[in-house]
Amino acid sequence: MTERTIQLGHGGGGRLSRDLIREQVLSRFGEGPLRSLPDAALLPWKAKGLVFSTDSFVVNPLRFPGGSIGHLAVHGTVNDLAVSGARPLWLSLALILEEGLPFAVLAAVLDDVQAAARDCQVGIATGDTKVVGRGQCDGMYICTSGVGEPLSGFALSPRRIQVGDRLLVSGPLGDHGVAIMAAREGIRIGHPPRSDTASVHRLVLAVAQGHAEQVRLMRDPTRGGLAAVLNEWVEDREIGIRVQEQALPFSPGARALAETLGLDLLQVPSEGRMVLMCAPEAAEAICKLWREMPEGRDAAVIGEATAEAGRVVIQTAVGGRRLLDIPQGELLPRIC
Amino acid sequence: MTERTIQLGHGGGGRLSRDLIREQVLSRFGEGPLRSLPDAALLPWKAKGLVFSTDSFVVNPLRFPGGSIGHLAVHGTVNDLAVSGARPLWLSLALILEEGLPFAVLAAVLDDVQAAARDCQVGIATGDTKVVGRGQCDGMYICTSGVGEPLSGFALSPRRIQVGDRLLVSGPLGDHGVAIMAAREGIRIGHPPRSDTASVHRLVLAVAQGHAEQVRLMRDPTRGGLAAVLNEWVEDREIGIRVQEQALPFSPGARALAETLGLDLLQVPSEGRMVLMCAPEAAEAICKLWREMPEGRDAAVIGEATAEAGRVVIQTAVGGRRLLDIPQGELLPRIC
Repeated sequence: MTERTIQLGHGGGGRLSRDLIREQVLSRFGEGPLRSLPDAALLPWKAKGLVFSTDSFVVNPLRFPGGSIGHLAVHGTVNDLAVSGARPLWLSLALILEEGLPFAVLAAVLDDVQAAARDCQVGIATGDTKVVGRGQCDGMYICTSGVGEPLSGFALSPRRIQVGDRLLVSGPLGDHGVAIMAAREGIRIGHPPRSDTASVHRLVLAVAQGHAEQVRLMRDPTRGGLAAVLNEWVEDREIGIRVQEQALPFSPGARALAETLGLDLLQVPSEGRMVLMCAPEAAEAICKLWREMPEGRDAAVIGEATAEAGRVVIQTAVGGRRLLDIPQGELLPRIC
Repeated sequence: MTERTIQLGHGGGGRLSRDLIREQVLSRFGEGPLRSLPDAALLPWKAKGLVFSTDSFVVNPLRFPGGSIGHLAVHGTVNDLAVSGARPLWLSLALILEEGLPFAVLAAVLDDVQAAARDCQVGIATGDTKVVGRGQCDGMYICTSGVGEPLSGFALSPRRIQVGDRLLVSGPLGDHGVAIMAAREGIRIGHPPRSDTASVHRLVLAVAQGHAEQVRLMRDPTRGGLAAVLNEWVEDREIGIRVQEQALPFSPGARALAETLGLDLLQVPSEGRMVLMCAPEAAEAICKLWREMPEGRDAAVIGEATAEAGRVVIQTAVGGRRLLDIPQGELLPRIC
């Protein structure tokens, strides 16, 4: 019998990741807040509760067009809290550093952490630093955890999605993933894509004022991209989702590179975007709100919930249909 | 000019670690709760506050006599919360896994996480899993963060230490560090030392009932050992600490191995012990309480606060004195 071992695809955010987490993590810890596979957990805490989230960052290269591992480490955890309906307040910062890492590299990354945390109005509350020998980590890894305060009015759950609900995205999809791949492969094109790494918490705060109750679910489409998020939302449910292909926002650089690299941008991570499902009557209002904000300039209504249980379908411009499956996940190792 | 780079000693918990954290972390994030170099932060949160802590674990080997990285990942963060005067409630669990790691190794470590979390009565609330390629981490690293509820009555601060206050430890010192070194070096002796990895939160809960106000400070002597903790407590303060050498509890195995390896057990990490400074009138009562508990069986009063500002002194059995300095930190890489 061959020994089963961890494969790169287990970290890709697709089917392999999901299966690993189910088999190894949920089987052991799935009775509590982890049960619903959240990117963050809503915990009982005094009157209002507490939202708690964690993420490790192992991106390669450490610095890429549009940002660095330092930006990702803040934005990733802030965004997990935000799309869980919380106001992000405090982060922890754990560093794993490789012997020989230049101080200048560390300092530049920590400058980015500082700038991103200020921008997101979160404090770095506590930290830890470990050093491993040469060849035992690839420069540096960062783990951030975050705590946030639940915003009033949200009752986020896939169970609340109804046929006819509308699907929104806050901006172009996949820029982060293609920017990393281009940097890693040394690909040069005319308008090179830049990572979209950014926080979405202001987009969430804007929605919270007046539209919280109309929102069914929010997520940031990171590993596995939009495909992973939407498939997770409909899995084992009575509803499906139909996405209008021509409504999907993509940046020209990401489009060009995805073609070159043979990537489906719907499976490629963004690190500064959010997806939201809401009651149909709220969709245009939320989209308008977002478009007035720099981080939501290219927001769009891209689809709706259907009665096709468990299926995510892309409706093409010419009237065709294709199934958008959950990615396997081998494509993009160490993307965040 | 030579480029400054990260050295193994920067992770050792001694002077190099302290300087790195001051220069790179506190300089950027030191205005908030991080200012006092805590292993955990007390955050404003509703009425009572919230205690928040994080730790990465990069121990080599993953499994050692007495425990595994899974036990450490739970105990380390639970203990940081506990000695900050909190009841640990929830942990996050972030895994960085290396391609090729056998599932069986992962499963065994997660079994240990589960068992340790149950024993500590904390829930695993949220998690994250990343995979890196072969040669990019040494099997697996774990980062846990924790949130806890402040226990009533504690007002922990080095500023509250007064001359004559008593110093207690909950059990033998240094077992974890020597167990790791023995495992790594393949050293075999008659009574091989076992890691003391365990939680101290029940010791803290016991103290909280009736003695909280008499406690000045608590800590778990991990990286850098007792020497690092005590030196941190007296640094830049008007008080010093005198430790009675003959009162210090050590296990026979640790004593034998420390001699073989040339280690000073006062600089070697424990992972299931705590140190406490309290008003003199509480010392015997706390020591008695602890000795009635399995994890405090070998508790002892080991010293007291003095007027020798900033100095930690060891009083030997024959009446001699030596300064106990903060370790440099190069000795024991990847010990936790």
